[in-house]
Amino acid sequence: MGARELGLPERVPSRDGLPERVTIWEVGPRDGLQNEQAVVPVEVKLEFLDRLAAAGLGVLEATSFVHPKWVPQLADAEELLGRLDRRPGVRYPVLVPNERGLDRALAAGVRHIAVFGSATETFAQRNLNSTVDGQFAMFEPVVGRARAEGLEVRAYLSMCFGDPWEGPVPAEQVVRVGRRLLDLGCSQLSLGDTVGVATAGQVERLLDLFTGAGVGVDALAVHFHDTYGQALANTHAALRKGVSTVDSSAGGLGGCPYAESATGNLATEDLVWLLDGLGIEHGADLGELVAASRWMAERLGRPSPSRVVRALGG
Amino acid sequence: MGARELGLPERVPSRDGLPERVTIWEVGPRDGLQNEQAVVPVEVKLEFLDRLAAAGLGVLEATSFVHPKWVPQLADAEELLGRLDRRPGVRYPVLVPNERGLDRALAAGVRHIAVFGSATETFAQRNLNSTVDGQFAMFEPVVGRARAEGLEVRAYLSMCFGDPWEGPVPAEQVVRVGRRLLDLGCSQLSLGDTVGVATAGQVERLLDLFTGAGVGVDALAVHFHDTYGQALANTHAALRKGVSTVDSSAGGLGGCPYAESATGNLATEDLVWLLDGLGIEHGADLGELVAASRWMAERLGRPSPSRVVRALGG
Repeated sequence: MGARELGLPERVPSRDGLPERVTIWEVGPRDGLQNEQAVVPVEVKLEFLDRLAAAGLGVLEATSFVHPKWVPQLADAEELLGRLDRRPGVRYPVLVPNERGLDRALAAGVRHIAVFGSATETFAQRNLNSTVDGQFAMFEPVVGRARAEGLEVRAYLSMCFGDPWEGPVPAEQVVRVGRRLLDLGCSQLSLGDTVGVATAGQVERLLDLFTGAGVGVDALAVHFHDTYGQALANTHAALRKGVSTVDSSAGGLGGCPYAESATGNLATEDLVWLLDGLGIEHGADLGELVAASRWMAERLGRPSPSRVVRALGG
Repeated sequence: MGARELGLPERVPSRDGLPERVTIWEVGPRDGLQNEQAVVPVEVKLEFLDRLAAAGLGVLEATSFVHPKWVPQLADAEELLGRLDRRPGVRYPVLVPNERGLDRALAAGVRHIAVFGSATETFAQRNLNSTVDGQFAMFEPVVGRARAEGLEVRAYLSMCFGDPWEGPVPAEQVVRVGRRLLDLGCSQLSLGDTVGVATAGQVERLLDLFTGAGVGVDALAVHFHDTYGQALANTHAALRKGVSTVDSSAGGLGGCPYAESATGNLATEDLVWLLDGLGIEHGADLGELVAASRWMAERLGRPSPSRVVRALGG
């Protein structure tokens, strides 16, 4: 059941550079659940993944091979992948921070991985204990071995717009680091507004700089956080620049809406409402997505931050 | 203190049809508080208005002369206006539903009123006990007398995009009703997405239809609700069409974010974040706005639904 069938928004077909079809890169099971205080039981994660696949999402970032010491919420990565009932046509990428993570991913039969880098020195230091240039020493063997094994590799780039320690991030620096990740052999670069501060003009300018530097818009994805309420406006700006892969999190999982540093992901349902309204194909069923997110919200014991889930939830 | 001084977003100057300056039409004291369960004491309303004026907002919709039987939350309209410490350069429009309301407004010294109409038959019936055409019998004497007294009159038009009973609203019908309101002598038409279902393409098309019908974009304002998370994306679409008056509500007052039928107004702070990022002048101070909304949220005993207020609030 799409938004239209739920009775309300009118579909106004795509124009102004909008893509005809968008791939929703669902990060809730990984980026969402890794930020939960509580460790979610593996059975719940598996059912969540299955409900999201049944709702028509074609890419489900399933888990992460970050060391369990850092992200105990995803310490069950091997068990989860071992028990995962993979649906035909659905991709299940996993996050891999280093060669040890790649070893675990390969042993688990993973075919699609993502690495994550930083566009700023401070975040490279804090998150990766490295530098903007130094992080490539970590990525090179991971991406090289993964590609040699025939895996597809996505790269996340964090802090592409603002950094809480450094302030605004020079777009030229983002393009330089991003291009280097693509040159390494990554097939897609996801531009992350990790702290949610970006506004639409900044998004447009960064995308223009990338395409001006010879990076096709098909190689780019966007990953917005709704910390300052800008995620969907930024997404619309990116769509108008032709971006056709958008990261989002079912139910907006991934940030506590009450915390001072709320960093909630763009909610998949709010994205689907926009895409449906714009007449952009995406393959997901809004009613089933809302049901899956409500089911997950009940497991987590708190309401979904997605506006659409709240508005449509019973 | 603007968003930029708060340290995070980068300003990317206006282009692509964006206006250089936007008038924020603050509706929180009226549209927000009339939807609160509790009746807010007049002293609190007065201090809220004063804090919002001090924060640099130039238009504060202060109250409504709807019959107290229908909106007991604003039954103190006369007392509030009598005690209001009007700041120079700030406008304090009030909502006026009929001639009795106009009498009360004139007696209270009001110089700026707003009437509200419906673009759909069902809402005209339910909200005004009239019809789309019949409602003009109510507006004509109100607008005529108000204009003769030298008052400025704004018109709200509800259900411009979707109606919960009728579904999508034909844009041609909205243009027809809207033009008639302007022809009556209203100086501005605020296009309301009363149930929050609109998406950006629909907004662009409606604005194009209005300008194609000879209505200047300067005569139009937009009024979005964030029920399905679309308010700011829709606002950005309207800004790109040259709209330079945007309705919003400090702290997102005006709808319970937990209710099934949440109909929260676009939060003024989230709008200001966008405008600051786009380099569009508006005159308000984000830090003071957030402080005013946090103060009001404490009076109401529940957190603000504004993402920016939550993110910046202590």
